[in-house]
Amino acid sequence: MTPSGTAPVAPAGNNRIAFWFDFASPYSYLAAMRIEQAASAAGLAVDWRPMLLGPVFKSMGVPPLPLFAIAQKGDYTWKDLARQAAKYGLAWTRPSQFPRNGILAERIIIGHPGAGWIGDFCREVFRRNWGLDQDIGDETIIAGALREVGVDPGPALARATDDAVKLALRQQTEQAIALGIFGAPSMVARGELFWGNDRLDDAIAHATGRDSA
Amino acid sequence: MTPSGTAPVAPAGNNRIAFWFDFASPYSYLAAMRIEQAASAAGLAVDWRPMLLGPVFKSMGVPPLPLFAIAQKGDYTWKDLARQAAKYGLAWTRPSQFPRNGILAERIIIGHPGAGWIGDFCREVFRRNWGLDQDIGDETIIAGALREVGVDPGPALARATDDAVKLALRQQTEQAIALGIFGAPSMVARGELFWGNDRLDDAIAHATGRDSA
Repeated sequence: MTPSGTAPVAPAGNNRIAFWFDFASPYSYLAAMRIEQAASAAGLAVDWRPMLLGPVFKSMGVPPLPLFAIAQKGDYTWKDLARQAAKYGLAWTRPSQFPRNGILAERIIIGHPGAGWIGDFCREVFRRNWGLDQDIGDETIIAGALREVGVDPGPALARATDDAVKLALRQQTEQAIALGIFGAPSMVARGELFWGNDRLDDAIAHATGRDSA
Repeated sequence: MTPSGTAPVAPAGNNRIAFWFDFASPYSYLAAMRIEQAASAAGLAVDWRPMLLGPVFKSMGVPPLPLFAIAQKGDYTWKDLARQAAKYGLAWTRPSQFPRNGILAERIIIGHPGAGWIGDFCREVFRRNWGLDQDIGDETIIAGALREVGVDPGPALARATDDAVKLALRQQTEQAIALGIFGAPSMVARGELFWGNDRLDDAIAHATGRDSA
């Protein structure tokens, strides 16, 4: 499939849930590690939708790191993340750099629409940033993540530099803004927006109609 | 008990959970209607701790209504509140005035430390604001709430005008800020802070030691 085949993103219909995320978002990590299993148990497929939170925040006039703009809330957020990761049994390290740049990993996803390894790759990149404190902005780390999920890094990394792929990621971010997305993670199920790791179960229930809404 | 007996607030110890709230806070409503039953089932007592969110936000340099400062997030928040209320089986009406002034109701709580009707009164005031769209800043509405929970409104309303009671509410708000509280609802259990209706279960688990933390 060519990079030019990446631009159209259908809204998640029945039996699908769209997962909008940025690798730099810590609550996206908590949801990303759990969504495929939870969705699969409910008979749903996941559409992985990377976006760039920077332009999303900028479009609303919000400072780049809203969770950490207030000292008290920032301190609390790091404690909350550690507690939530422990609750879910996920590896957790407060990264030595924050935020890290997920754009290369996001372009790789955009460059390979529908590839069977996308979910595994997303989890591997998230795990390296938030569980192993690795710099996911570094090409060698992303190459390692690709190898880990059985993908030859050379062609995948080359495709990420394609102008059509770069444009498609910008367009997908614009689509997020058009959908009313204001933070990450966000889930879209049957036309409804759900924001935050804390709404993962509600989003899945809505996607299946179990919430009778 | 005299109003001057209201100032000291012990940190919630074992078998207790402190619930910090403002009647103007919609997510406080969702938690307030559920906390006593959930806590009781876990063998815990609830300490109701009203505070004034205005001074809390001001102390951090945050605008008065952070949930609604961004249009996209504000629109989403109203939808989320309606969905969460439906999930919990709680009455919900988007109030025709927002935020409403909860200071009179908060002073009544401060003026009657340890009274057996405080939990019922809190739920009744929340229900009137968020379930019935009544103006809880109006003395006649609060008088109705007091009668509903079996309290003679005259003396209770009079006590709320006592300078010592007014001071004690300001002091309790200062204590919230000193505890690192930055929003509502907040729960304090065994010295740990938990923020938001979404953390009610975690706070109760921590209070009982069930999270083994």
